[in-house]
Amino acid sequence: MIRVLLVHDECLVRSVLAEWLRREPDLGVFDAPWRSAPSRLRTVAPDVCAADLECSDSYGIPPLRDLGARQSEAPPPRLLVLASANRPGLLKRAAEAGALGYVDKEGSPEHLVRGIRRVAEGKRFVDDSLGFGFFRAAEMPLTRRELSVLGLAAEGASIAEIAGSLHLSHGTVRNYMAAITRKTGARNRVDAIRISQGEGWL
Amino acid sequence: MIRVLLVHDECLVRSVLAEWLRREPDLGVFDAPWRSAPSRLRTVAPDVCAADLECSDSYGIPPLRDLGARQSEAPPPRLLVLASANRPGLLKRAAEAGALGYVDKEGSPEHLVRGIRRVAEGKRFVDDSLGFGFFRAAEMPLTRRELSVLGLAAEGASIAEIAGSLHLSHGTVRNYMAAITRKTGARNRVDAIRISQGEGWL
Repeated sequence: MIRVLLVHDECLVRSVLAEWLRREPDLGVFDAPWRSAPSRLRTVAPDVCAADLECSDSYGIPPLRDLGARQSEAPPPRLLVLASANRPGLLKRAAEAGALGYVDKEGSPEHLVRGIRRVAEGKRFVDDSLGFGFFRAAEMPLTRRELSVLGLAAEGASIAEIAGSLHLSHGTVRNYMAAITRKTGARNRVDAIRISQGEGWL
Repeated sequence: MIRVLLVHDECLVRSVLAEWLRREPDLGVFDAPWRSAPSRLRTVAPDVCAADLECSDSYGIPPLRDLGARQSEAPPPRLLVLASANRPGLLKRAAEAGALGYVDKEGSPEHLVRGIRRVAEGKRFVDDSLGFGFFRAAEMPLTRRELSVLGLAAEGASIAEIAGSLHLSHGTVRNYMAAITRKTGARNRVDAIRISQGEGWL
């Protein structure tokens, strides 16, 4: 029996997906939204955590690190993500969090079952249709520092506030913003935020 | 038999939801993503169109008007939406498009079936838990013109470009931006865009 924790933020979709997975005799299915996933991981101790990469909190960036952390005595669960090729930033984050499985939400739900079984064996599972997303993920143009600057700007912080938060001068923050705008091919700061959020970098 | 067209942009979720609905003997279920919903409406001529309010195109605003338009000879389908209380702007758009049913995505999937049956009879169905969302929808602070200005800004247009598009002077666009920032309780323009997108106004 493979114990699966399904993480998805929409209760209606999560319930139907969990019920659908429960038809498979070899799967024991539990479910949780992102905010309670870490505590559910501890109580359920699943073999596989199958998590949707859309998250309704924290500006849409799922707290993947919280899933990967070792839970008490049990080995950490294998991570499989439900992803989309047009948000390469989220694919990159999942890869950094050590996800073994990548199921395309634009594909057939049968892939989810196949992916869970494969990942449970400790093997990699990557939907072919996510290839272009990974290609774009490898091309992420911004440095970690530039992402911090842009992330604060996206939350509505002014140049002065960003400078204060990151202990930088105003001029340095302006230089970062100019570099970010150029590197993302944006017209201006708002456009750079829009592009970066769309790709899932932010 | 109630003919239902299920509209959802994620193929995996759409397939599982459609299969789940097909277990009901009185429902005939078809499905489509948003981009092909208008053409599917013409061929399927459903009694009820059950549409998820998240849309992967057009900056996340679903093209609800395209669903309501009269399809050839057949009466237009009754519209039911899958909604969330924390995006009141989308609830408001659905109400403006004449939706009869409002099913909370944070609720049980059984409500979806109940909602479809009720809406098929021409009756209203509103999940109680969406009440606060409707309350906030009634409080939308921006005028239609202010939304046009902010929408262009959110796409990355400069003051000059917005002025050109809407045939306004630069000063007028600046005045609109200042009013928008004040009315949304934002710190600056980027913050106003962030707040408005979060609520689903934009």
